[in-house]
Amino acid sequence: MASQVEESTKELNEMSISPFGTARSSVNVNPLSEDEVRKMNEYFRATMYLCLGMIYLKENPLLREPLKLDHIKRRLLGHWGSDAGQSFTYIHMNRLIKKYDLDALFISGPGHGAPAVLANSYLEGVYSEVYPDKSEDVEGLRRFFKQFSFPGGIGSHATPETPGSIHEGGELGYSISHAFGSVFDHPDLISVTMVGDGEAETGPLATSWHSTKFLNPITDGAVLPVLHLNGYKINNPTLLARISHKEIESLFYGYGWTPYFVEGSDLPSMHQAMATTMEECVLKIKQYQKQARDSGKAFRPRWPMIVLRTPKGWTGPRHLGDHFLEGFWRSHQVPVADVATNKTSLALLEEWMRSYRPEALFDQSGALIPELKALAPTGIRRMSANPIANGGILRRKLHMPDFRTYATEVKKGGITNVGSMALFATFLRDIVKLNPHHFRVFGPDETESNKLGAIYQAGKKVWMGEYFEEDKDGGNLAPEGRVMEILSEHTVEGWLEGYILSGRHGFLNSYEPFIHIIDSMVNQHCKWLEKCLEVEWRVKVASLNILLTATVWRQDHNGFTHQDPGFLDVVANKSPEVVRIYLPPDANCLLSVMDHCLRSANYVNVIVADKQDHLQFLNMEQAIAHCTKGLGIWDWASNDQGTEPDIVMASCGDVPTHESLAATALLRQHLPELKIRFVNVVDLFKLIPEKEHPHGLSDREYRAIFTNDKPVIFNFHSYPWLIHRLTYKRAGQHNLHVRGYKEKGNIDTPLELAIRNETDRFSLAIDAIDRMPHLNNRGATAREDLLNQQIAARNYAFHEGIDPEELRSWSWPF
Amino acid sequence: MASQVEESTKELNEMSISPFGTARSSVNVNPLSEDEVRKMNEYFRATMYLCLGMIYLKENPLLREPLKLDHIKRRLLGHWGSDAGQSFTYIHMNRLIKKYDLDALFISGPGHGAPAVLANSYLEGVYSEVYPDKSEDVEGLRRFFKQFSFPGGIGSHATPETPGSIHEGGELGYSISHAFGSVFDHPDLISVTMVGDGEAETGPLATSWHSTKFLNPITDGAVLPVLHLNGYKINNPTLLARISHKEIESLFYGYGWTPYFVEGSDLPSMHQAMATTMEECVLKIKQYQKQARDSGKAFRPRWPMIVLRTPKGWTGPRHLGDHFLEGFWRSHQVPVADVATNKTSLALLEEWMRSYRPEALFDQSGALIPELKALAPTGIRRMSANPIANGGILRRKLHMPDFRTYATEVKKGGITNVGSMALFATFLRDIVKLNPHHFRVFGPDETESNKLGAIYQAGKKVWMGEYFEEDKDGGNLAPEGRVMEILSEHTVEGWLEGYILSGRHGFLNSYEPFIHIIDSMVNQHCKWLEKCLEVEWRVKVASLNILLTATVWRQDHNGFTHQDPGFLDVVANKSPEVVRIYLPPDANCLLSVMDHCLRSANYVNVIVADKQDHLQFLNMEQAIAHCTKGLGIWDWASNDQGTEPDIVMASCGDVPTHESLAATALLRQHLPELKIRFVNVVDLFKLIPEKEHPHGLSDREYRAIFTNDKPVIFNFHSYPWLIHRLTYKRAGQHNLHVRGYKEKGNIDTPLELAIRNETDRFSLAIDAIDRMPHLNNRGATAREDLLNQQIAARNYAFHEGIDPEELRSWSWPF
Repeated sequence: MASQVEESTKELNEMSISPFGTARSSVNVNPLSEDEVRKMNEYFRATMYLCLGMIYLKENPLLREPLKLDHIKRRLLGHWGSDAGQSFTYIHMNRLIKKYDLDALFISGPGHGAPAVLANSYLEGVYSEVYPDKSEDVEGLRRFFKQFSFPGGIGSHATPETPGSIHEGGELGYSISHAFGSVFDHPDLISVTMVGDGEAETGPLATSWHSTKFLNPITDGAVLPVLHLNGYKINNPTLLARISHKEIESLFYGYGWTPYFVEGSDLPSMHQAMATTMEECVLKIKQYQKQARDSGKAFRPRWPMIVLRTPKGWTGPRHLGDHFLEGFWRSHQVPVADVATNKTSLALLEEWMRSYRPEALFDQSGALIPELKALAPTGIRRMSANPIANGGILRRKLHMPDFRTYATEVKKGGITNVGSMALFATFLRDIVKLNPHHFRVFGPDETESNKLGAIYQAGKKVWMGEYFEEDKDGGNLAPEGRVMEILSEHTVEGWLEGYILSGRHGFLNSYEPFIHIIDSMVNQHCKWLEKCLEVEWRVKVASLNILLTATVWRQDHNGFTHQDPGFLDVVANKSPEVVRIYLPPDANCLLSVMDHCLRSANYVNVIVADKQDHLQFLNMEQAIAHCTKGLGIWDWASNDQGTEPDIVMASCGDVPTHESLAATALLRQHLPELKIRFVNVVDLFKLIPEKEHPHGLSDREYRAIFTNDKPVIFNFHSYPWLIHRLTYKRAGQHNLHVRGYKEKGNIDTPLELAIRNETDRFSLAIDAIDRMPHLNNRGATAREDLLNQQIAARNYAFHEGIDPEELRSWSWPF
Repeated sequence: MASQVEESTKELNEMSISPFGTARSSVNVNPLSEDEVRKMNEYFRATMYLCLGMIYLKENPLLREPLKLDHIKRRLLGHWGSDAGQSFTYIHMNRLIKKYDLDALFISGPGHGAPAVLANSYLEGVYSEVYPDKSEDVEGLRRFFKQFSFPGGIGSHATPETPGSIHEGGELGYSISHAFGSVFDHPDLISVTMVGDGEAETGPLATSWHSTKFLNPITDGAVLPVLHLNGYKINNPTLLARISHKEIESLFYGYGWTPYFVEGSDLPSMHQAMATTMEECVLKIKQYQKQARDSGKAFRPRWPMIVLRTPKGWTGPRHLGDHFLEGFWRSHQVPVADVATNKTSLALLEEWMRSYRPEALFDQSGALIPELKALAPTGIRRMSANPIANGGILRRKLHMPDFRTYATEVKKGGITNVGSMALFATFLRDIVKLNPHHFRVFGPDETESNKLGAIYQAGKKVWMGEYFEEDKDGGNLAPEGRVMEILSEHTVEGWLEGYILSGRHGFLNSYEPFIHIIDSMVNQHCKWLEKCLEVEWRVKVASLNILLTATVWRQDHNGFTHQDPGFLDVVANKSPEVVRIYLPPDANCLLSVMDHCLRSANYVNVIVADKQDHLQFLNMEQAIAHCTKGLGIWDWASNDQGTEPDIVMASCGDVPTHESLAATALLRQHLPELKIRFVNVVDLFKLIPEKEHPHGLSDREYRAIFTNDKPVIFNFHSYPWLIHRLTYKRAGQHNLHVRGYKEKGNIDTPLELAIRNETDRFSLAIDAIDRMPHLNNRGATAREDLLNQQIAARNYAFHEGIDPEELRSWSWPF
């Protein structure tokens, strides 16, 4: 065995993989003429010059004068490290777009390499078309340089202001899942996706490589990943650049890809290697697609990908003083930082910039010379002009059946039980049916558990893995389908974002507790949407709809880990321009809300509804009226008509509404003289003042519902403090007593869980009595009765393991 | 090329990998005697019987009477699917623990397979020792069964109540990173880690396989992963069970492991295969460790791992009616669900349970027969009794130098500038030095960027990947070190949690905006800690300390994606028993707070501090007094001594304090007759009423600081609404005007960003004036002056790209 150990050690130690030197590649053909190499290299140099210009210059953009400190921005910001590799890839894709008339997108995973994509967008003319003041001349170039990482300007990621971008990369990890989202149902599209080797270390990216098992070569396009072994992150080497060649090849083989390697720093040979390798990859893609499309038989090929190993800060100085620059992490950000205080550094920068020979690349007016300009594609074939990256342009209206026809009959509120989710599933099924090419449903292996299984009648789960005999037993798998399920919230969210941003519609369903896994992704999507509102040429995309179920109140056996309704707090912090939160109390309201959300644009809509059977309250007409208002008094459950109420019982969320209504009934049974107003809230942002959210009620409207001075017992689905945060400016706030999940839970029956959080009917009714001291003895007697009922029910549940039948099958008695 | 396509297709289609049949394994020796196989199999049957008992029975635990409906729980909950594979692995590890006297932990990744670990803990006697009422007899067994997934009982994950568990698995994805955390600096420990093939699809798990590049075979123990290809999730096949053998082998080779396969369902041959394979793996681990330890030369071996492919619901009925059960997702949860309503099902269940022959496995008293009992290890060698899984037992006090000796001199508040983080780094460096074996620092490639680089003097970054020449140029890499960096927040958080839960101390630093990536992990850790407080035998572990920097207010060039201070909202929803939030205003306060946090136990401490140079306010004595109180009036910045103030200027967070102080100075300069009280908050939960958080102020104390009725202009680091949520019960709440980040940002100078969110000195001073209408004309004049100053500063910044010098180098003028 000792030999095996030695072998293992040896193999791992034998791997000094340098990013420097003559190109080494998987395919060895030299397809370019010397002249082509020269021109591609000059174009490449032009982009590198532009990258430096963006980082450093505010004046003298083409160095037509000697470089002076006055030309340099006073604060130097921006990132140089990954620019060269990204631009190199972009330019080589340009060649193939022209040669094969490809429909292509460029997705920049490393994020902080925006100069590379900005430079290319500028050189292919798109930037100036979109922003005419950044024209293709000296003054336009100056403005283009100055705005970069400058106050009021643009950032160093591929932000929404960047033409051709659907992926900002501010937060790393989502480039591959976004790319797959963009190519689903876009059969002609190839999304070239640069994956930074830093980004590749993140969890979300590490699992997203498996997306090929969900890509149908007949109906979907292709993703061509370029894993950029740039070698370093901010201050550390990257993992994937420091393992053996055999390991990295195996890793990607294992993920299901065919990796092609292009490694080195020598420019002429690197151009040849990249040209031939990328062409081989594009041809492979075309060939697999043709095979599948000609035969009508979808299969999972080992899709090609490129591993590009180049030095970080490629084409920069190898050393700076005693330090390494090119090929080391010191080239990550501003490569020469002390130009303002060190004349040698300023001279070095000038020499470096001049080494790209801008005078030979740009004409007198400051425009790229025609010989080079001719290398870029034209019109919408330019990657930064591809309309798919401005998805709103392509967005077609979703075909929607009339949701009212799916209504459940409700003759009287609070009597019948129906499963809201199962009912909604029939509506969703028909939406799937009517929109076979631009609507998909996403979820992390919970669609069936969430009672949405009816949709499989219209669209199965996409599965390009192996099939077993058992799958016929209700597996609902198919190579073509409309439902996307992998046990990775990150991946489904990333797919959905990519799908929406490239002009289609979709919908994510998830267990409520685990939606926190993608807090940061939703956060970033909100930020993207909000910034898009400030970018004139961006057209609105479909809303991102997130349906949360398997909620906190019905986690009897899953326990404490499955109890967290706090996603709403994260969403509520985002810009009011882009977020909406709905908690429909019953099935007809859920239908109405979902119809609204699926038709809407540019929002993140969060909808919370339980998947179990529930009491139904409103018929469809009432539900529409209620959801349209967003909140309202339920007259049928109130007895304060025409008078001021003694107390307001309010609720938001289906389970809380059930308990709040039961509490109202208890109060009316025990204290019939009480005037009780019952209020339900569907649209959470109605509670906020109108100045702070477009849905907000005016103070007058708010008062008309909640009164100025009466006690309000508000039963809320989520953490109670969110209601206080939304209403702190309202008059009567000190009379608002909110109950909700207070992080008290375990393996409990629904009743026990509610009692621990004081959201059960008994606690609510007692709470109400305690706010009305004027009830005196009558109140005290009722209070004691209620307490005894609560104790009895609790004991029953504790011994039997279930809540008493009379609570489970309770209905409204009036 | 066509042939390549065909080959590719063929290879992928040739892979009908069945989990059924005679064992197929990488190593083919039969080490067990027939009698050993028989005994191990009987022990295994005993655990399977116990798993079913937990899911179904509340009475008649050993089926000594015919099974009746009365014996069955009324609500059936629990998970059967992964129990067999997990228990099988556990039992085989037991054999090796006994044979080689191993120190081992069992980490149950699939989570919902708790019956397997509970059954094993019970059979090895630990459960009864820990919970004497669950004794090893018929009545104890009955109680053991009944409590499972029963109100007031325990859950179906490896919850804190489970002896031997440091990993609950309620939320999936962290088993491998937790396991690595447990073995760092525990050189003798082997953590056997079951990874569910569902869990394996998550992002966090997918990248955590790379953890071997950070494991030193000399000073750390080993993780032995058992990837359980159980085949199915809730309703879907798993990816990794449906790709070719070659792909899965390559994938794990690529991740850096040597995968050993054990596949099949035939019990006798599976026992032989698992016994020989697991032994081979343990011997490999020992051998690699010996090689490294004897030579003193750390290297990265290709650590062994096991791929265990067995049918889901293994040992259950293959069919149930017309449906597949064993080997399909239908066996995920309660395998036969309708026993209450279907007599045939009840009979089937009885037959199935009796097929394990409980009468032959348990003696008359109900205890496991001695012959089988002898198979389990004894004492703390039993995996469920390993003290490492009750880490508090092992926790030693951290050796801490006196933090006061690191103080920065502050002769007068608001004059000098110091980098708090760089100063803290020197304190941290010495803590690292004093605790070379039980303290580590974790971070996602940001430690240097966060100005904590001084710690490398005491402990370098652990790196077991390849080394390059450049690394000598400040790379700070070493095979042995104290700093753990991978660009995966999930992985570093998982490592840290595992490290702490197994009895050590640690610390995570991260950019503030991206800490949302691990919202859900921190959430789950809080829940774990809180439940541990309810479990008597659990001893408190070190706090999880999270230092957030690169904060929202200094993201000039990173822009909108890097602006999110909302992690505090997520944390504030967790139980007050376990969460603490600190925002030290300056360097000495940061030292004092960090000293406190690093000494504390069982909390999640979140500390927010910027990494740039900042004004210093308090000398060390003042800082200690201030941090001990948690908030207070800064007399030196106030001029209301002995009187009621006209206005209270309050702040929380370093940047907001700077601006709030500057606003106070502006007010005093413009309106010298004003009486202003300056208040600073360090400990955020001081704001909450004392009944709701142990740190909360009484109403009297609160009033003494904030007054009852004076306007308070509160400048807050995070979203302003959090302050309202914390103070909504306080008198004078309507006078509290909170400013904070309102999701308004972009590429802005610090001033511009502050102005957009109304947190700059001018806006705050104007805000204050607007709340004091009695100032009349004097107020109006001052207001106009301030507005003009604001406009001028803003214009300067817009044109020059930096804020005016007089703002950047501002100091307290009084």
